[in-house]
Amino acid sequence: MFQETIKNITPVNPAFAEKARRRLDSLTKPQGSLGSLEEFAERLVAIAEDTMPVLDKKVIFTFAGDHGVAEEGVSAYPSEVTGQMVFNFLNGGAGINVLARHAGAEVVVVDIGVNRDLAGAVTREHMAKGNFVSRKIIPGTKNMRHGPAMSRNESVRCIQAGIDLAHDYAGQGYKIFAAGEMGIGNTTPSSAIAAVLTGRPVSEVTGKGTGIEDETLKIKIGVIGDAIRANSPDPADPINVLSKVGGAEIGGIAGLIMGAAAVKIPVIVDGFISTAGALIAYCLEPKTADYMFAAHTSVEKGHKAMLDKIGLHPILDLQLRLGEGTGAALAMLMIEAGLKIYREMATFEEAAVSEKAE
Amino acid sequence: MFQETIKNITPVNPAFAEKARRRLDSLTKPQGSLGSLEEFAERLVAIAEDTMPVLDKKVIFTFAGDHGVAEEGVSAYPSEVTGQMVFNFLNGGAGINVLARHAGAEVVVVDIGVNRDLAGAVTREHMAKGNFVSRKIIPGTKNMRHGPAMSRNESVRCIQAGIDLAHDYAGQGYKIFAAGEMGIGNTTPSSAIAAVLTGRPVSEVTGKGTGIEDETLKIKIGVIGDAIRANSPDPADPINVLSKVGGAEIGGIAGLIMGAAAVKIPVIVDGFISTAGALIAYCLEPKTADYMFAAHTSVEKGHKAMLDKIGLHPILDLQLRLGEGTGAALAMLMIEAGLKIYREMATFEEAAVSEKAE
Repeated sequence: MFQETIKNITPVNPAFAEKARRRLDSLTKPQGSLGSLEEFAERLVAIAEDTMPVLDKKVIFTFAGDHGVAEEGVSAYPSEVTGQMVFNFLNGGAGINVLARHAGAEVVVVDIGVNRDLAGAVTREHMAKGNFVSRKIIPGTKNMRHGPAMSRNESVRCIQAGIDLAHDYAGQGYKIFAAGEMGIGNTTPSSAIAAVLTGRPVSEVTGKGTGIEDETLKIKIGVIGDAIRANSPDPADPINVLSKVGGAEIGGIAGLIMGAAAVKIPVIVDGFISTAGALIAYCLEPKTADYMFAAHTSVEKGHKAMLDKIGLHPILDLQLRLGEGTGAALAMLMIEAGLKIYREMATFEEAAVSEKAE
Repeated sequence: MFQETIKNITPVNPAFAEKARRRLDSLTKPQGSLGSLEEFAERLVAIAEDTMPVLDKKVIFTFAGDHGVAEEGVSAYPSEVTGQMVFNFLNGGAGINVLARHAGAEVVVVDIGVNRDLAGAVTREHMAKGNFVSRKIIPGTKNMRHGPAMSRNESVRCIQAGIDLAHDYAGQGYKIFAAGEMGIGNTTPSSAIAAVLTGRPVSEVTGKGTGIEDETLKIKIGVIGDAIRANSPDPADPINVLSKVGGAEIGGIAGLIMGAAAVKIPVIVDGFISTAGALIAYCLEPKTADYMFAAHTSVEKGHKAMLDKIGLHPILDLQLRLGEGTGAALAMLMIEAGLKIYREMATFEEAAVSEKAE
């Protein structure tokens, strides 16, 4: 199934991009004057292979997982916050809920690796609304400082869970996905992945996460260095990297992106941690990049190095560092703006407006 | 009335910003992790002097005016396009219509200086919908290459028209304004204003507008240089600058911003031309800056110099260069996102989420 997905990923169709460009150039504005909005429309048409795509059903997946490495004191918050925040998501009170409502998108919380039994505590109401999915592969990773975060088999199952979600929601008629996450401690594995897969020194790709002090940052950099030395992750084998120094939610995001590319659905990558997932997907199959939109420039150090490696240019720069999918929800509004311009603007002919003098 | 407006402009209330900050810090997210969104909420609370403001009624003003200097061949489009585009706006087919609908805002087209009689041609339906306002002060400016674009009295009346609109729409319950424009040739006076009021050389603040060639850009720079030499605009007297090398829509925007500041309504400044209007307002009364949001970084050269002078940091960078208010409509979505975060997110206490370890 996993190899099958990779085989199904093809580059987007340039003939559709060309058709979109011709329509964009006929609209009542100087050619190219709506900049990135025009690019978004062009890419959406090329991805969907449809000259009049719609984005009527939108979903943001917030993958939740815990991290054994949190016991090293690398985060400003205790591990229990991951599970507590899942309930905040389900009750509609978190940042992602507010911004998803603003963008007209649904939030689906995926328990792929939380260290607490959530399925029992989630109410029937939450399940019925479809905004909680239990795909728990592991009850949190092991502490990567001393050995692999998870087994290779667990990593593959995390990716597969993401692929399955992509197929499932594409089948339900969703037209655009966004990938976000929640997991106390998860900037630590993300920085480790960034260091291994971009070749940059750990200190250049490690930041302050949810807001640690300078002293804790030094500890965090030390822990990541230890983890890389203890595990020797192989940069030529992205699944090995995910197993050794990754996390369940990062694997789920990588899988969602691969599945999205296989079923030709655009996917918005939120911030630092989601981009670590995107980088795993990209290293498994570079053609996945054709289907990705980078939501924003995270405050988190090391984000740019990963985006550069994938070749993505972020849409927004609003100094965000929350995660959950919050930046992706905002970027979704901009991407949809591009499609609306493409679909709804009058042409020079329709509006009887004189064209540019030659 | 004009001097009365200036007297009514006070700095925003820091006590309200402080109250907003306390609430933001109690919400279920690391403090400050929603970056610019939090700043938007803080500023909206401070401007409205209301701890729970709403943005239920939003309006984008598209000020339209023509420019005598267009006869020098400084634009890629003929002057007749200004009037044609007004009808495109009224029929809902322009970029600003699409993006205003996306942002849930109304568009009001203001004929403040179009060189064609529009009031007669606008249908009763357009007037009834309230999306066209006739406040024509001049039928286009005179060619500034050889003398003043308009008289001092006309300039003041343009500003007054903007002030009146601010009062009128504040009275109707609108909670946020945006300023955009349409006017073939209007990057030329905007560059002239930028050069005079920032002290930068003309060539550093003059760009390609709607898309002229290198050869035409040289002509445009020459024409602006001629206009400044012929008119000797006085940088210490913003109304003199507006009269000598400005335009009706630029004056209207300056007035709208001054009026907004006087009635404590936030105002989003679109792109290059709107920022020229904002710079006139700022030079008349620097406290107006407290009420402005800069929508985006325009592709147009010279935009940054004006934003720096006012002290504004643009919200978006989407390579836009259309004007009309399109960037402001998109920025409105981001500003509203900030307010929704502030109003709708759960606090740590409400959600029973553990706070940061001390």
